[in-house]
Amino acid sequence: MHSPAAKVSGYVVLMTVQIIFLVLFWLFVRYEKTALPRAIDAEDAGSAKEHVSKYPQFQDIQVMIFIGFGFLMTFLRKYGYSATGFTLFMAALVVQWSVLMKGFLHMEGGKISLSLENIIDADIAAAVPLISMGALLGRTTPIQLLCMSIFEVALFAANEYLALNVFSICDCGGSITVHAFGAYFGLAVALMLRPSSDQNETGKLEGASYTSDIFAMIGTTFLWVYWPSFNSVLAEGAGGERAILNTFLSLAAATVTSFVVSALVSHENKLDMVHVQNSTLAGGVAVGTVCNLLLGAHGAILIGIIAGTVSVLGYRYLTPWLTANLRLHDTCGVHNLHGMPALISAIASAIYASMATVGEYQSELQNIFPAMVGTNGTETKIMGGLGRNASSQAGYQLFGIAVTLVIAIGGGILTGAVLKYTNFRNLKKDEHHQDEHYWEVPAVENKEE
Amino acid sequence: MHSPAAKVSGYVVLMTVQIIFLVLFWLFVRYEKTALPRAIDAEDAGSAKEHVSKYPQFQDIQVMIFIGFGFLMTFLRKYGYSATGFTLFMAALVVQWSVLMKGFLHMEGGKISLSLENIIDADIAAAVPLISMGALLGRTTPIQLLCMSIFEVALFAANEYLALNVFSICDCGGSITVHAFGAYFGLAVALMLRPSSDQNETGKLEGASYTSDIFAMIGTTFLWVYWPSFNSVLAEGAGGERAILNTFLSLAAATVTSFVVSALVSHENKLDMVHVQNSTLAGGVAVGTVCNLLLGAHGAILIGIIAGTVSVLGYRYLTPWLTANLRLHDTCGVHNLHGMPALISAIASAIYASMATVGEYQSELQNIFPAMVGTNGTETKIMGGLGRNASSQAGYQLFGIAVTLVIAIGGGILTGAVLKYTNFRNLKKDEHHQDEHYWEVPAVENKEE
Amino acid sequence: MHSPAAKVSGYVVLMTVQIIFLVLFWLFVRYEKTALPRAIDAEDAGSAKEHVSKYPQFQDIQVMIFIGFGFLMTFLRKYGYSATGFTLFMAALVVQWSVLMKGFLHMEGGKISLSLENIIDADIAAAVPLISMGALLGRTTPIQLLCMSIFEVALFAANEYLALNVFSICDCGGSITVHAFGAYFGLAVALMLRPSSDQNETGKLEGASYTSDIFAMIGTTFLWVYWPSFNSVLAEGAGGERAILNTFLSLAAATVTSFVVSALVSHENKLDMVHVQNSTLAGGVAVGTVCNLLLGAHGAILIGIIAGTVSVLGYRYLTPWLTANLRLHDTCGVHNLHGMPALISAIASAIYASMATVGEYQSELQNIFPAMVGTNGTETKIMGGLGRNASSQAGYQLFGIAVTLVIAIGGGILTGAVLKYTNFRNLKKDEHHQDEHYWEVPAVENKEE
Repeated sequence: MHSPAAKVSGYVVLMTVQIIFLVLFWLFVRYEKTALPRAIDAEDAGSAKEHVSKYPQFQDIQVMIFIGFGFLMTFLRKYGYSATGFTLFMAALVVQWSVLMKGFLHMEGGKISLSLENIIDADIAAAVPLISMGALLGRTTPIQLLCMSIFEVALFAANEYLALNVFSICDCGGSITVHAFGAYFGLAVALMLRPSSDQNETGKLEGASYTSDIFAMIGTTFLWVYWPSFNSVLAEGAGGERAILNTFLSLAAATVTSFVVSALVSHENKLDMVHVQNSTLAGGVAVGTVCNLLLGAHGAILIGIIAGTVSVLGYRYLTPWLTANLRLHDTCGVHNLHGMPALISAIASAIYASMATVGEYQSELQNIFPAMVGTNGTETKIMGGLGRNASSQAGYQLFGIAVTLVIAIGGGILTGAVLKYTNFRNLKKDEHHQDEHYWEVPAVENKEE
Repeated sequence: MHSPAAKVSGYVVLMTVQIIFLVLFWLFVRYEKTALPRAIDAEDAGSAKEHVSKYPQFQDIQVMIFIGFGFLMTFLRKYGYSATGFTLFMAALVVQWSVLMKGFLHMEGGKISLSLENIIDADIAAAVPLISMGALLGRTTPIQLLCMSIFEVALFAANEYLALNVFSICDCGGSITVHAFGAYFGLAVALMLRPSSDQNETGKLEGASYTSDIFAMIGTTFLWVYWPSFNSVLAEGAGGERAILNTFLSLAAATVTSFVVSALVSHENKLDMVHVQNSTLAGGVAVGTVCNLLLGAHGAILIGIIAGTVSVLGYRYLTPWLTANLRLHDTCGVHNLHGMPALISAIASAIYASMATVGEYQSELQNIFPAMVGTNGTETKIMGGLGRNASSQAGYQLFGIAVTLVIAIGGGILTGAVLKYTNFRNLKKDEHHQDEHYWEVPAVENKEE
Repeated sequence: MHSPAAKVSGYVVLMTVQIIFLVLFWLFVRYEKTALPRAIDAEDAGSAKEHVSKYPQFQDIQVMIFIGFGFLMTFLRKYGYSATGFTLFMAALVVQWSVLMKGFLHMEGGKISLSLENIIDADIAAAVPLISMGALLGRTTPIQLLCMSIFEVALFAANEYLALNVFSICDCGGSITVHAFGAYFGLAVALMLRPSSDQNETGKLEGASYTSDIFAMIGTTFLWVYWPSFNSVLAEGAGGERAILNTFLSLAAATVTSFVVSALVSHENKLDMVHVQNSTLAGGVAVGTVCNLLLGAHGAILIGIIAGTVSVLGYRYLTPWLTANLRLHDTCGVHNLHGMPALISAIASAIYASMATVGEYQSELQNIFPAMVGTNGTETKIMGGLGRNASSQAGYQLFGIAVTLVIAIGGGILTGAVLKYTNFRNLKKDEHHQDEHYWEVPAVENKEE
């Protein structure tokens, strides 16, 4: 069953990838000017400080990626080493790759300028394959995951460039470019790797233990707490404060709503930890794209209520249906936490964009909807031309999510096909959702339980 | 035993509350000017930045509320879902309610201005019912908890307004208005819900398992680490740095002291995890009210030593006495962590206030003891008039804690009566301290343990 | 076996130490001017803000010390109370002691000025005995640990003063003065306390359980995430941003490398949690001394690759060899996580120092390599005189690590001798690696497992 030789060659390839990264960084990456020595005077010191003013938010996002995703996925009873360990490895690989991929799209003089911004972007990019991993959790080898990540992040960088720089859509918290992309890419891979119909029943290890559920709450809670940082880190000016406020309120409303809906639809009206661990966060996703817009507090709360409801209903009814009918096993339910809430966010962005006026947004329009500004003659590549009107911007928002879905699903199908039909080892049904095929697990423990 | 209909109606009421919140936010809440678009120039950008400069401290407090309280309460062996889950839900409900309640007391033009400050205040307010929940942990239904929170936070907002704006007491870290209020309110509710005398023995689930004790240390440690942020977030100018330093030193001294006293008074001189999880934090509470005053490092350390000692002795001797004699079950021992240390803090505030001079505090007097300033003719509602002297300020500090205790205990008795004698379902003795009555618990686990 | 009287007297001594600290703070410590009241005007407010601008990084370091170290050491199956509890106590004691020890070396007018800087330094100093504790984990009494800490921190302060202020070496992230010192001091103590040769086999409790391994990942992940704050907190100007970037990239590369090497050298090519928990962090240590230098991204990645490789090989081959041949039990493998990576960092610092030029570093040279600056006539105590050249600076870097090793190992041998041959109680073999000799452990649990 285990072919050590295959494992070894996989890891050797992986080491080669790391060494290729080293060479690419050597050739193409240089510190940005702000990170280089210079004459120190009051003004410069201020500018240096300015440059790292987002550092606390960066650290919050680091916690979300490594602790948040890592522990959220520990809910499976025998997959905690993989959840926390593979999260760490995938993220460590992806952040390097993402600096290169996104950097190649914005080179200056043939070099990538490295600053705090690049690693903030890299952490955000790391979320993408981690979301996809949620859809596949326990049903792939680590090498499959890591190869998927490499391909997915390259495609993500291209799609993001298309959405933000070409279509010029707003997507402050990344619900379209990060959450929808990661979720539907992962679901497409999961669909390709789906079991044969005689192996479709849910395995006995595909559930939580009392302890593993509490570990998962560490992930949930840190994601909840720091989500305002994720959504606001790329916002500018007063939009940053709105992003914080709107995300906070949307999360709060989604949480109360998830609680209620979970109790109403669950067996014996008992609360379901899956909903608590995941649907409470749907408010953060659903408000993402629009978090820096003028939603008003009530707008944020309304979005949270809708997201919490949709997410819990998705877990309760849609996921089992997809598993039974399409053999689509979405282990963490990323469709309910990231997929559908991201669609809600995209729709909300079209609605709010259609109502945006210069009078309301004043000079911030330039940051938020740059294609709607007519006066500053730059960026001829912006589609729809300068001075795009509000309805047109709304249309672009919908176009942006549609293109994202096409690229994500197409890329996912392709990737899934590669993982399934080429030389990669595929896990057998009885190898799913357990650490011991890839990890040394304490022997005593195995006997005890 | 379980009436699904009663549960359902409880959750329907809760959803209604969330929708009422939505409507109230729609009617009354607007972004503050700092969060609105405006012409961007250097000066404004600076001011916007200034406005969110407390964001890192806000995030620390978020971790304290959601991770800190949530995990601190996981120490019970079979109540971890409730501890982490109900914390999340209560806090999500309370933060919205608190924005409204505190906002109504400070409206401008009939509207509440929403900014980062409001959600910092809301997080602090969320601590109040979570402290009370500690006194009741495992002995109420979630619906009882949530109703208690609604009433308690309204009363908290009123008492805080009275203490800070009317009596003009100093309470930088909220030991009087937050900790004493939350603790004695919760204890009063617990007294009202006390068991009949034939059911007074401690249940077998009212203790920790090895794993649950380590989960609880996550809560303890994050509370410890971020407590300086909680105490300093509302301090101004140099008082902020003093609040950080004093809190840090008081916590350190309380920790060493708790360790020693725990070993000296415990069975076989072994350390007791209850003391480690809780009494180590008493230094943060006891220094709270006075954290921005000129205590000197030695003052902070002395307060920490006293608090650690009192707290451990409280756990060792007073709590069992209260349980045996008053049938007062204080599950988390909030009286020892929040109640008594808050009284120490109030007394310390009277002592330090009685010694405060303009010469010492200079222009900071205006922020710290505004009623002692005679020259700036504002706020005629300040009792005792402008130019209040130091002894008088000391008296007001004691008056402030006294009024807080009366309101908290009175409100708690009233709330407890409502929870006990009206239509709320009350848990039976054998339903205490276990998740499974309100949560779907993994079946395998139940068999195994 | 247990002598309550001995325990009691140990704790009484400890309380006396806390009271001596109180007195010393009373006599010698005063708030720094920035933390004192003053007339508030725009300029001063700015300066007060400036003064606490490192507060978010301080909080990150707090999490590393208390959560990071505490939980990293919970990996032993029956030593979780001690890991989290003793970390809390030792750190609480050491931070006070370190403020005094480091303060005495920098007094002004016979007083120690207390500001945020002092407690940042104190948190960094707390890492030193915690690293040493890792080498001894489970094989000492708490009183032995606490006495070791007192002595070790005094020696650490002296060595650091020597290295930074006398030899004028660069050591931005403290790999030489903190990591190498703590690791080799702890190893020397462990060597002194080594078992007799008939008791050298590894105990059955000297390993992880499935749950304890996941608890340890909490520690690992928080250390990983916040390591850039640890390395950059003392950097100045643009060096701060470089420290962040270099640390981040080195950690990422070390993580991927550890993963690969772990799989290649482990039994059946399965991943080993010990490597994941520890070697992934070696990149943070190995880049520490040089993190603010002009390494380039590729330099940081190369250092990470080397560190990850050396660390995993150390765990796999060197540690078992040391145990078998020298009876040196390094419970947490601090030699592989802190010791060898710190040596790598020292060597790297000599290499980069030998290439440093004024043209490259410009005005930053003054902060980074102050002894290489010829023009500003100060600090006559700097050895090698002003205008030290690059090769000479490289030599001093190597001299610095050599002196650190001599002092650490010498001090450790002396401390170990005191702990072994004086009145301290030494744990017996069958008391190792279990909480129950010093902690009240839940009774039910003991029966179950």
